Amino acid sequence: MENSYVLPGQEYSRDTSYIESRITRDGGDGWPVEPDRYRLVVARACPWANRTIIVRRLLGLEGAISLGMCGPTHDMRSWTFDLDEGEQDPVLGIHWLAEAYYRRVPGYLKGITVPAIVDVPTGAVVTNDFAQITLDLSGEWKDFHRDGAPDLYPEALREEMEPVMQRIYTEVNNGVYRCGFAGSQEAYDSAFERLFTALDWLEEHLSTRRYLMGETITEADVRLFTTLVRFDPVYHGHFKCNRNKLIEMPVLWAYARDLFTTPGFGDTVDFEQIKSHYYEVHTDVNPSGIVPAGPDLAGWLEPHGRESLGGRPWGDGTPPAPPLPAETVPQHATPLPGGVAPA
Amino acid sequence: MENSYVLPGQEYSRDTSYIESRITRDGGDGWPVEPDRYRLVVARACPWANRTIIVRRLLGLEGAISLGMCGPTHDMRSWTFDLDEGEQDPVLGIHWLAEAYYRRVPGYLKGITVPAIVDVPTGAVVTNDFAQITLDLSGEWKDFHRDGAPDLYPEALREEMEPVMQRIYTEVNNGVYRCGFAGSQEAYDSAFERLFTALDWLEEHLSTRRYLMGETITEADVRLFTTLVRFDPVYHGHFKCNRNKLIEMPVLWAYARDLFTTPGFGDTVDFEQIKSHYYEVHTDVNPSGIVPAGPDLAGWLEPHGRESLGGRPWGDGTPPAPPLPAETVPQHATPLPGGVAPA
Repeated sequence: MENSYVLPGQEYSRDTSYIESRITRDGGDGWPVEPDRYRLVVARACPWANRTIIVRRLLGLEGAISLGMCGPTHDMRSWTFDLDEGEQDPVLGIHWLAEAYYRRVPGYLKGITVPAIVDVPTGAVVTNDFAQITLDLSGEWKDFHRDGAPDLYPEALREEMEPVMQRIYTEVNNGVYRCGFAGSQEAYDSAFERLFTALDWLEEHLSTRRYLMGETITEADVRLFTTLVRFDPVYHGHFKCNRNKLIEMPVLWAYARDLFTTPGFGDTVDFEQIKSHYYEVHTDVNPSGIVPAGPDLAGWLEPHGRESLGGRPWGDGTPPAPPLPAETVPQHATPLPGGVAPA
Repeated sequence: MENSYVLPGQEYSRDTSYIESRITRDGGDGWPVEPDRYRLVVARACPWANRTIIVRRLLGLEGAISLGMCGPTHDMRSWTFDLDEGEQDPVLGIHWLAEAYYRRVPGYLKGITVPAIVDVPTGAVVTNDFAQITLDLSGEWKDFHRDGAPDLYPEALREEMEPVMQRIYTEVNNGVYRCGFAGSQEAYDSAFERLFTALDWLEEHLSTRRYLMGETITEADVRLFTTLVRFDPVYHGHFKCNRNKLIEMPVLWAYARDLFTTPGFGDTVDFEQIKSHYYEVHTDVNPSGIVPAGPDLAGWLEPHGRESLGGRPWGDGTPPAPPLPAETVPQHATPLPGGVAPA
């Protein structure tokens, strides 16, 4: 995603108006669930897109929904398929992701964001509503889940999950952006306070349970993970979220490492692209465009000790298979501990 | 100090041409050692000026050389006495430090830097040669040292100290600036490598001895301390020196805390002014001018355990008295552990 504005002296606000069509089993919006029809367009750098990469992998939807991958940097206009041969997405045949937006809404004026799901036959974006996309991958695409796919959004837990996910969204996922794009010292100071209040709560909350909702991984963990994994590499310095590094919060750091070494999480993370995106794209924050060489990331593979909290990470399911060779992050070409081995 | 340039794509270079007159016992340059005649002008924010504040305090020269204090921020033109009543230095009667430079060299075109020693009767800068100033406070001003002043620059050690101080200067004191003001990714990457190579060497070097030159505090420790104390608050994030925080290097971190709680070191440090200076003045690095709220500094007062290495911190001397009330950093108005109590 890159879809925001800040006015001088003001608090950062995220533009939350999206193309909200849904791909559903009944096709009520005109886009029925159908394998081999849609393409999920992401950028590994983007935390909101990272969610969808993880959920697609955990649910084993690789065979049903293909993956298009934008590069880590983009200009004012659009994310681009600059990593692909000829700088064109091989399926959609476009360079600018914006082209798929224009096919849906000619002259589309809002942010060209990832994740976006594109209807391949028409080449038009169906939805870029990131919060709904992962929930629909869980709920609407059930018939195409792999055997042993976990239930990331269990009916029985939804009421309890809602406020947790809401708090993670406003205070953490978006909270780091509120710090980084604050338009005044006052707005920043108050954003900083909100962010670390939420992180202190999570540090406490996760001290007695292995995952956010208890003993099993859910959508809520996916949403928290994508911010935590970016915390020390970018948010701590670039967004001035610097009361402390993640590694200074022992519970959250162990929780993040536990997920990182869980198949489907760490193997989707490309630290190089993450750093490149934030430090090169936000020239208003980092005019030089120079990407820091740190931090040392070796600690991510240290034992986390969270097994002692017990839990059934996959509930009644099983871990996902390694990523497809074409979707393997180069940094993870050698297996991570905990069986996170690419094919 | 603020005296530097960087060309696009190039390595940062410090302009090292100074007004190099010396105040000496024999008055060979025209400025003889004489109490109550000179004013040392500093800014607490500046690491090069911080050296002189520490050495003046350790040697007990407060009664012989008065202290003028510029505020943490300045514009393109000059440091200013904006903290003083009427924004004028009460002794020199000037607002811009530049005025004292112009009295010495009309139309002076180089950087208006701190530390600078001003001859009060003429109001003209005698020297801003920071490296020589502290050595002369030790060597030339001996007759005015307090009883029990340590020998920070012992004759017998000078040959051994020279390469250590040189390496600390080029690789560490200036090394962090080389990272922060690098004009290209290549220049930054190489600066980062040099900096952390030196810090790794120091981590090793200080693991078996309490101070850089052995069992007693010397000028070399003063020079290293002023960079270390700024590392996590500014250099780590603002200058992208982010392989790790200082607190992640156990030996250096304990060494820095040991000095911080030694009278004459921590009590000269004003973290608020330090952060304000770097984040507000370098708008080319931090266009918003927003000053980070972090890091949490509570750790500076944790026990450091370095006493177990033994040592005679003051040699044959004694610790300095608390700072003068007028020179007390507000943050240290309550005593630090280890007896670092202001009057």
